[in-house]
Amino acid sequence: MTRETVTHRDGHVYEFGPEMDPVYEAADGESLTVETIDSLNGEIQRDDDLLDAIPEEVNAATGPIAVAGASPGDVLAVEIEAVRVAEDRGRVLTAPGFGLLQDDPEIDHPATRITEVDTDESEAGAVEFEGIDVPIEPVIGTIGVATGGGTVSTLTPDDHGGNLDTTDVTGGTTVYFPVFQEGAMLALGDAKAAMADGEMCGTGAEIAVEVDATLSVVEDPAVPLDRPLLDTGDAVKTLASAETLEGAVELANADMLDLLAHHHGFSRTEAYLFSSLVGGLEISQVVDPQVTARNAVPSEYLSVPF
Amino acid sequence: MTRETVTHRDGHVYEFGPEMDPVYEAADGESLTVETIDSLNGEIQRDDDLLDAIPEEVNAATGPIAVAGASPGDVLAVEIEAVRVAEDRGRVLTAPGFGLLQDDPEIDHPATRITEVDTDESEAGAVEFEGIDVPIEPVIGTIGVATGGGTVSTLTPDDHGGNLDTTDVTGGTTVYFPVFQEGAMLALGDAKAAMADGEMCGTGAEIAVEVDATLSVVEDPAVPLDRPLLDTGDAVKTLASAETLEGAVELANADMLDLLAHHHGFSRTEAYLFSSLVGGLEISQVVDPQVTARNAVPSEYLSVPF
Repeated sequence: MTRETVTHRDGHVYEFGPEMDPVYEAADGESLTVETIDSLNGEIQRDDDLLDAIPEEVNAATGPIAVAGASPGDVLAVEIEAVRVAEDRGRVLTAPGFGLLQDDPEIDHPATRITEVDTDESEAGAVEFEGIDVPIEPVIGTIGVATGGGTVSTLTPDDHGGNLDTTDVTGGTTVYFPVFQEGAMLALGDAKAAMADGEMCGTGAEIAVEVDATLSVVEDPAVPLDRPLLDTGDAVKTLASAETLEGAVELANADMLDLLAHHHGFSRTEAYLFSSLVGGLEISQVVDPQVTARNAVPSEYLSVPF
Repeated sequence: MTRETVTHRDGHVYEFGPEMDPVYEAADGESLTVETIDSLNGEIQRDDDLLDAIPEEVNAATGPIAVAGASPGDVLAVEIEAVRVAEDRGRVLTAPGFGLLQDDPEIDHPATRITEVDTDESEAGAVEFEGIDVPIEPVIGTIGVATGGGTVSTLTPDDHGGNLDTTDVTGGTTVYFPVFQEGAMLALGDAKAAMADGEMCGTGAEIAVEVDATLSVVEDPAVPLDRPLLDTGDAVKTLASAETLEGAVELANADMLDLLAHHHGFSRTEAYLFSSLVGGLEISQVVDPQVTARNAVPSEYLSVPF
């Protein structure tokens, strides 16, 4: 099978909802390349391109891509083989009313710094911030599927995925989503060349990328999935979004107990005690309309049950 | 100089306050061994030893140890050379009204599992949970200095340190504390043989330990310290406690900007943007009367300014 490329020019969305029209229908198990534009649609190219407010249309997500055979109750596995930066610069920026320290009077809102790609540095390359090379470790910020109901901006993460802004969503990781609608309807965008856990200022180094991924449907999952789940190769991580970090870590921990109990035959109490000994809670992002956290367990203690 | 040993039998505290009577006075630069009892004072030895409530006296912290020459405005550097487990078992447990999932009806509160030390496994050893070996990676849960005012239980973390429950507080890490009172008055205890980031059930594998550490006073720090700071060798991490995780990560990020601005000559805006590209926010614990978070920056981008 020839590897197809789906680009943001073919189609992109600014919302995930229950009814989405696919721009491409993939076979179960098909490997694709997906091209995404940067989260600000190419409008920030210089340090004096400032963002006075978050645009209404932000985080264009290429797609949706229907996956043949995906039905509600299934799980969609998105195996990310590689993420490559596809332009010569990223951009990291603040905007008024956005970001962890939006009320700090000594920080400029808005402010922009272009991070040029320096390909000499190493094979993987680096972006440059004020003369400092930061290795390119790409992150897909927004990735999700059609919702079970309700329409959600691509700025917001929730149980369908969306603006998860999670550094693990990169080459080598498989992301699992609950399927809420026929075809699942995957869409992705909002990539960064580099991003800190937390994404404190509201962005990483936002950049266009190409993503190689294989899409597969899991029928009758041994453990039902309510929210996204990651397998990085080193660890299995539950992923939850909520209004507060407290809410997000509670969901991520509760979901992890289901997986640990299934894998080890633990009671829920034993799973809870064990979860307090290995891996642990991680922050994805603290700046979007809902925040996102993870519960990680190293792969030596847990594998994904499908 | 002979290495002195200070044990919990010499003295221990259940509170950090502004006025603390030292059990030992260390010279500036002195290397000591500190012995600590487990957080539950040895009362939990079997699976059927249950904790019906958090005891009033919990997290006994060995000390306080005065450090000669430490005065308010200085920084106390605690270089942790090694942490060794000092008994044959740890214990991980739940108690009613304590822990992230304390309202989950399928989890028993209270519940206890003894985690026996299995020294055959490797040189570092392991503890056993329901037949699974978990490598011993010791953590000092409670470590702090006399407060600037107010008295704080050893169950609570704050700007003086205290119940930080941070996995990085182990051998190889230097912990820096602001000095609020003459002599600093260091005390530590509440160690674990292993603990997840988050300490979700409310404990790790609580265990007695011996700690080798060197205590040094930094006068006139180049960047004033309001809260604890860590250098793990791989990363510099600010550490903040607050009522919510949102509050804790905001403090940890704001403190990190001071360090990045000093190190790189960044404006505060540049420091903020850069902090959103590398390292990031981490969770220490989500279960104590205040919660604790970190902002990590890899050592290639930042060193401690003293």
